[in-house]
Amino acid sequence: MDRNQLVLNILEKKSYLCIGLDTDFLKLPRHLLKEPNPVFEFNKQIIDSTKDHCVAYKINTAFYEAMGLAGWEAMEKTIKYIPSTHFTIADAKRGDIGNSSAQYAKAFFDTLAFDAITVAPYMGEDSIRPFLDYPNKWTIVLCLTSNEGANDFEMLKTSNSFVYEKVLEKVSGWGTPENLMFVVGATNPSLLGQIRAAAPDHFLLVPGVGAQGGSLREISVNGLNSDVGLLVNVSRAIIYASPLPDFAKAAAAAARIYHEEMKTLLAKIPVAHHR
Amino acid sequence: MDRNQLVLNILEKKSYLCIGLDTDFLKLPRHLLKEPNPVFEFNKQIIDSTKDHCVAYKINTAFYEAMGLAGWEAMEKTIKYIPSTHFTIADAKRGDIGNSSAQYAKAFFDTLAFDAITVAPYMGEDSIRPFLDYPNKWTIVLCLTSNEGANDFEMLKTSNSFVYEKVLEKVSGWGTPENLMFVVGATNPSLLGQIRAAAPDHFLLVPGVGAQGGSLREISVNGLNSDVGLLVNVSRAIIYASPLPDFAKAAAAAARIYHEEMKTLLAKIPVAHHR
Repeated sequence: MDRNQLVLNILEKKSYLCIGLDTDFLKLPRHLLKEPNPVFEFNKQIIDSTKDHCVAYKINTAFYEAMGLAGWEAMEKTIKYIPSTHFTIADAKRGDIGNSSAQYAKAFFDTLAFDAITVAPYMGEDSIRPFLDYPNKWTIVLCLTSNEGANDFEMLKTSNSFVYEKVLEKVSGWGTPENLMFVVGATNPSLLGQIRAAAPDHFLLVPGVGAQGGSLREISVNGLNSDVGLLVNVSRAIIYASPLPDFAKAAAAAARIYHEEMKTLLAKIPVAHHR
Repeated sequence: MDRNQLVLNILEKKSYLCIGLDTDFLKLPRHLLKEPNPVFEFNKQIIDSTKDHCVAYKINTAFYEAMGLAGWEAMEKTIKYIPSTHFTIADAKRGDIGNSSAQYAKAFFDTLAFDAITVAPYMGEDSIRPFLDYPNKWTIVLCLTSNEGANDFEMLKTSNSFVYEKVLEKVSGWGTPENLMFVVGATNPSLLGQIRAAAPDHFLLVPGVGAQGGSLREISVNGLNSDVGLLVNVSRAIIYASPLPDFAKAAAAAARIYHEEMKTLLAKIPVAHHR
């Protein structure tokens, strides 16, 4: 999906919600365990019930790999099931020497046909380049993450800026707002505002709302641009809204609350803030 | 496999060679394509023919994921096939918030039963902790990699040292030489010497020999410690030594050359250099 289509979908739906399918086998409602592929069945029902409230789905590969072959199969079935109207992200945080990154790009862009993948920047340009070089696909590079550990290396001070600012500056030069986004955690909205100022045009994928405690309003005030420019991800607070057979209905209700708040924010935040 | 056993295996075999199974479907000898699982068949024959020359095998997950479900199956079959006498590394370069890293640890330590996994440090302590907390398993953290892109962020200067030195310093405090190694590329042997001085006891996993051009002799002079303390990885220069039906024999011959050089180096390098 290209940038124009993504922005159109967001504006039409008045939603910049991404739902994270961090599907943990141990947290599945019991009644699904009799299904031939319980994880896929869970995802299928979540997608059916929430798709009107979100514009993107993010699959966290960790949860699928933990289940081995059956997990990989559930991931394949899930990515095929997500409607083509929705932007799809492999939250895989890959990155290796060029030769190997090219294989990861093939795995997620070609074999699995995701629109986008998250990539860790530590190994530098040639580890990111094979993803950026893939036509009509998106690379989402970790910039400032939402976890405590962000303080360890991302927030190290270099000569004139923090490491995450160097990542933003250098990586911005390797891609364009048409094929490159950044991951910026919701847990520090004022730094998100500074990142928005340094990268006015790029989409930002923002995790950390919901279970991790980030505020949707503060992120939006600091991060929206004239194309909206945000994909705010919520995983656990939506998909595990209920552990009972009503889980899909509960997920829809939780997603609707974020969607309604997004509608309000898009209407209220002055255009001046949108750039 | 614990450290004592690993060191014993190295000393007994006089080899610190790790063979990288970066098995690319497109590079398989044609005659294997009629096998039910050509990638596994290739790996099986490589393992059979090279196991007397190496102490470890490293599986680069990128190549398996590129093949989708069949690739994941080949990885499962391969890890089960590697003899328990050999140390096994998932070269996966994972790392995410704690909740997700715990799932990756489960995937590679439990579901697939590797001894070790490579981890990217960008997201900091809580992204690495779930790997380190796994009993009887090893975490191998990227420090200074062998690729050109290492200059982009790893070599950024912070107040008093480079980013990779900060990684070495901080991460050393999170694990011990019994459960933590570092990835240090072969392409800069003098920096490898400095890293050895800063981390005298940790094992270093050294990629970059062979196709990437690092010198085994220089690495060994700069990196050996009293427990040997090195695992030198060679992938393409061994497993693709021949594209013909004699590939396994050719791989054995290539591995034997590294093994013989290691025997000589272990005999020649003065004990003073071994710490």
